Amino acid sequence: MTTAKRDINTNAKRDTYTPETLLSVAVQVFNERGYDGTSMEHLSKAAGISKSSIYHHVSGKEELLRRAVSRALDELFGILEEEQARLGRPAERLEYVVRRMVEVLIAELPYVTLLLRVRGNTGTERWALDRRREFDHRVAQMVKEAAADGDVRGDIDAGLVTRLVFGMINSIVEWYRPDVRGMSEREVADAVAQLAFGGLRRAADGRG
Amino acid sequence: MTTAKRDINTNAKRDTYTPETLLSVAVQVFNERGYDGTSMEHLSKAAGISKSSIYHHVSGKEELLRRAVSRALDELFGILEEEQARLGRPAERLEYVVRRMVEVLIAELPYVTLLLRVRGNTGTERWALDRRREFDHRVAQMVKEAAADGDVRGDIDAGLVTRLVFGMINSIVEWYRPDVRGMSEREVADAVAQLAFGGLRRAADGRG
Repeated sequence: MTTAKRDINTNAKRDTYTPETLLSVAVQVFNERGYDGTSMEHLSKAAGISKSSIYHHVSGKEELLRRAVSRALDELFGILEEEQARLGRPAERLEYVVRRMVEVLIAELPYVTLLLRVRGNTGTERWALDRRREFDHRVAQMVKEAAADGDVRGDIDAGLVTRLVFGMINSIVEWYRPDVRGMSEREVADAVAQLAFGGLRRAADGRG
Repeated sequence: MTTAKRDINTNAKRDTYTPETLLSVAVQVFNERGYDGTSMEHLSKAAGISKSSIYHHVSGKEELLRRAVSRALDELFGILEEEQARLGRPAERLEYVVRRMVEVLIAELPYVTLLLRVRGNTGTERWALDRRREFDHRVAQMVKEAAADGDVRGDIDAGLVTRLVFGMINSIVEWYRPDVRGMSEREVADAVAQLAFGGLRRAADGRG
């Protein structure tokens, strides 16, 4: 294994990068190499622009991380502001949020993947983990309200229910690829909601 | 960041290591640093023995990886040989396997965590991924048989159901710690089985 040649930049190309295209490349590299394992040199090579061109747009890789996870977090928290997440019975709001989480996860796949892999070594990572915990907490609160209503089972701790349902949703980043199996966001969201709310077991009165 | 001083071994201690204790240390380091990010130097430091002492036990880090993931895979495939996984209605066998998977995951937490993080860069990793796919396939087959019986819903593709339920189970490695929350393997297994089979929604005829 040779040491990366840190001082040799790729030839500077004409800089047609916008912060958005740079962000998209950075997220891909972070997901492939891990955030810790990514250097500005890696980003420069992947983007095909010099390190100084990157510094023209951002202060460094931590700013790129913050922008990327912000995008995922903004989309996720945005769900909670949607009308169907705010009005109606808690169980219906909860089901709406579960479906929308799947849709956001698929629509923003690389950004949510990065968010879910954040480990907490830098200030930005710890901030992202805090925001994730806040989101989890708000959904767990919905589970509690739905259980208090009698619409959702109350025999499993709301925090544990939330972790397990989120585990099911978040695992989608491990296998979903836009061009594989041809499943749409909606189809996956339906399957997750049906499984999470209805369970695997076919109801006794539903047997043919 | 300084380059690791690769040629300076820790002082050789009296070698009281067995292959098992070395494996346990290696798995911990692999889980913390990632398999790719772990050198023999890291293993030597973590174990407190020289690299040559490690080579006395194993041919290198890939052998340690193979032993570690084998342990997890043997436990998982062992479930499928248990009587309750082989006899009875497919839906009951499936529920048994789901519970036992949770128990094995918790009992062998670091080993299953490592297995789930394998990415496929080496022969051993690709072998582990193949074995995981084989396990998934055998459980998906149970889902199909249970659906054919009419005991389990047949409106979601068996492969997708298996992925989502495994997603829920596997996510446990992200948060379960033996000393936190005081939940036993059995309690978590019960919650997963209840959620996976019964779903979140309280049945209409079960309302108080």
